[in-house]
Order: sequence, then C-alpha cells, then structure tokens
Amino acid sequence: MLRINKDSRLPLYYQLSDAIAEKIESGEWGAHTKLPSERELCDIYGVSRATVRQAMQELEINGYIYKVQGKGTFVNPKKIKQDLLKFYSFTEEMKKLGKTPSSSVIDFSVVKCNEKVAKKMRLKPGDPVYQFTRLRLADNEPMMLETTYIPCHRFPGITREMLEARPLYDILTEEHKARLTMAEEIFTPVLVRKNEAELLQYMAQSPGMMIERLTYEEDAIIEYTKGIARGDKFEYRVVLK
Amino acid sequence: MLRINKDSRLPLYYQLSDAIAEKIESGEWGAHTKLPSERELCDIYGVSRATVRQAMQELEINGYIYKVQGKGTFVNPKKIKQDLLKFYSFTEEMKKLGKTPSSSVIDFSVVKCNEKVAKKMRLKPGDPVYQFTRLRLADNEPMMLETTYIPCHRFPGITREMLEARPLYDILTEEHKARLTMAEEIFTPVLVRKNEAELLQYMAQSPGMMIERLTYEEDAIIEYTKGIARGDKFEYRVVLK
Repeated sequence: MLRINKDSRLPLYYQLSDAIAEKIESGEWGAHTKLPSERELCDIYGVSRATVRQAMQELEINGYIYKVQGKGTFVNPKKIKQDLLKFYSFTEEMKKLGKTPSSSVIDFSVVKCNEKVAKKMRLKPGDPVYQFTRLRLADNEPMMLETTYIPCHRFPGITREMLEARPLYDILTEEHKARLTMAEEIFTPVLVRKNEAELLQYMAQSPGMMIERLTYEEDAIIEYTKGIARGDKFEYRVVLK
Repeated sequence: MLRINKDSRLPLYYQLSDAIAEKIESGEWGAHTKLPSERELCDIYGVSRATVRQAMQELEINGYIYKVQGKGTFVNPKKIKQDLLKFYSFTEEMKKLGKTPSSSVIDFSVVKCNEKVAKKMRLKPGDPVYQFTRLRLADNEPMMLETTYIPCHRFPGITREMLEARPLYDILTEEHKARLTMAEEIFTPVLVRKNEAELLQYMAQSPGMMIERLTYEEDAIIEYTKGIARGDKFEYRVVLK
C-alpha cells in the first residue's frame, strides 16, 4: 500500500496524488466511492495532514474527486472519452452514452459580424450572423458553454425558440438541407473564468478545454463555435496512422 | 477602438481581455509587439487600473502576452498548430517549423512495470520496462515534459546515452526495425504543477495539455508516454469528416 518515497526528488503531495489517481484510474476505487478521511490517509501513507490536503486539492482541481459538505470526499465518474474521428454532435454523443442532453439558450441575437468572426468564417465584416450562447447539459449537469455564429443569408428565419426546441444540426440539415461536409476543431487548454465557471457550476481557475469548431458546407463555412468544456468531464481521443 | 460596454452582463476585465486577444489573434498586434502601458490602456478603453491589471493577468495565463521586468508587456508568438491527422514526432514537427529540437533526459531507469503501466501497455505487472523522463525543447525553449515507457524485451540494450544522442523513434525504427503501425492519443486539459512548471520554465497553475500516447506495432504496444505540453505553446487541430 505504502508507495510514498521520502527520498524521491518528487514532492510528497505529488506522489500521494499520483498514488490515489492510480487507484481511481485502475478502477480499484470506482465512481462515487468514498475516500478514506484525511486522518486515515495520513496513517495509511505516513504523511502529514498538510501533504494530504495539498494532494486532495490537486485531485479535486484535476477532476478525480469531489467533496460533499459534511459527507466527505468521493471519486468522480470517469471522464467521457470523446473520439475525434468523425463529425459528432453533443446531442448525439450524450444520447449514445444513455444520458439526456439539453441546452439552455443564454442569449440569442442577430449581429453584424466583427472582423475576427468575419475572418474565421470567410464573410465580410458587417455581414449579419446569428450569435447565440448555449449551456449544454447532460442529465441536467452543465458540461460545456458554447457561443455559435451562423450566417443569416444561408439560414434565414432561425429563432431562439427553434434552438430551444431542437438540436442545431437538425435545424441546419432538415429545415435548410445543409450538407455538413467537413469540420475542423482546434483544442487549447485554458483556465475557466469566473462567470463561465458560475454557469458551468465548476470551480473558477480550473482547467477547461477550449474548442473552436468550423463546420463546412463544401467551401463555405456555415458554423463557427467557440466553446469551453469542463476539464473534469471530458477527454479527447485521436487515432494517428 | 472603444469596445467596452459598461451595460453588458460581461465583466469589464473580461471584455477588455477579449478585445486585446482579438487584436492579437487577428494579427493587428504581431509577435513581440509592445503593448500600451497600463495607464494608456486605462485611457484608451476608459476603464480602471484594476480592470486593466485583471485583464493582463488573464491574457498572460492564457499565453497571449509575456512580461519582461522593467521593459513592459509583449505579444507572444502564435501557438504552434499541431495537426492530429497522422503519426507525428516532436523532433520532426519542430524541424518542419525551422526550429532546432533537443531533449534533455532528466532520468532514465529500467523498472518492473506497475499495475497501471502494465494495464495500459498490455504487459504483466513486473515486466521490465525502460522508464525515462525527457524535457523537450525547441530553440532551447522548454515546450513539453514527457515520461515514456518502452518494453525491454522488444528493445534490448537501450541506454540513456542513446536517448541523448538520437531521436527515440530513430532508435526504435532503425536499430530495432520497429513498425509504428498506429498511435492513439488522449488529450486532457490540466494545471501545470509546481515542479513541472520549474522544468518547463512556465508559471505553476497555468493551463497545460496532458497527452497520453500509446504507440502500436501491430497488436503490441511498444510505447506509452504521458506528457504535459505548455498551454501557451501549442494548439491541436483535428479534421472531422
């Protein structure tokens, strides 16, 4: 059990955090398992209370564990493994996992696109675009926060009510016969900002994945989305040949 | 110029940070451009010094800007866009960009693999593996920190000196005729830990990308690497069909 090496150049809290992460990753401690108390961990690993606290803090930030006031510390469910092989939608992916997806439209407007968005979408600055922000939930738990731009000229008549009622890609492909021929996604690790964290019910300054997506219909870009996904909920997998 | 909206539900620092990020992303402010001083930014955008400081801090954490003591604040070069389409090596990618790659082998040993590594690599716990940690640099600047496991039985005779002299994949494919048939990578956003940050010459608690790689030779796993890349240096791109 004891795997903390006091002669290692690695700090003790770092070794302890790795040892516990290993138990969680290997499945030895499954989802929602209650962890030993701080005092018990001190005894088990022969380290100080301060070391245990620091390790716990790191495990919490990196999404391995969660705390319940007055109840203790528990193992988080495994992250959702999102395969980056073919086009995917949040709605479809969550359904495949047996979760109920939903979206809350936080704001919706038609705006003249600014230079940055115009450049990304190969539009002219000033061209009208829908701009909307959606909080994406699975089983009512916030997972991602996304701001999307869609060109009005290709998709006339989209309303906030439509987005609240149906998945975006259904509206694009069924109502407007869009052909989603290709998408490009860019992944960057970021810290979640305070107002994003509030919506995501997540700790501010925790790690998040920023994902920028451009969706193509032949040569035209019909969607630009900039989103942030909770770092404790997802991991992303690619296969390289 | 003035694009800060005091009636917005978005905090001022957040709007200011976005406005400056936009100038940097659009290329209006190029790499190593000196930013206006804090006082000038207050005047330009009509916000308080505290707001400017908060925005600057966020831009620094997210890798847009860097500070030089006594000189001011400057725009970071654009992140390296790593395409996740086919098998890539750090050495080759840096050369393609005209940078000089190098690696510093921080430690090297032959160990009996533990349960976690055995499970990942489809080995038996206790099987001997090389375990080594390398700091990967480009033009002498630290970019990534990687710990790699390689099965000894398939690749006898690897030494620390070899790794210091040649790229790992050259050793595997040339000396040992390995066929790298496929690789699988998993991306997770994390916070860089203090001792990792010291080696990476990066701020602790800044965003980093954790990348786990499994490299296959047919059905056998011949490499498992767990690395962390500086969040201010790389972004990762996938194309979905």
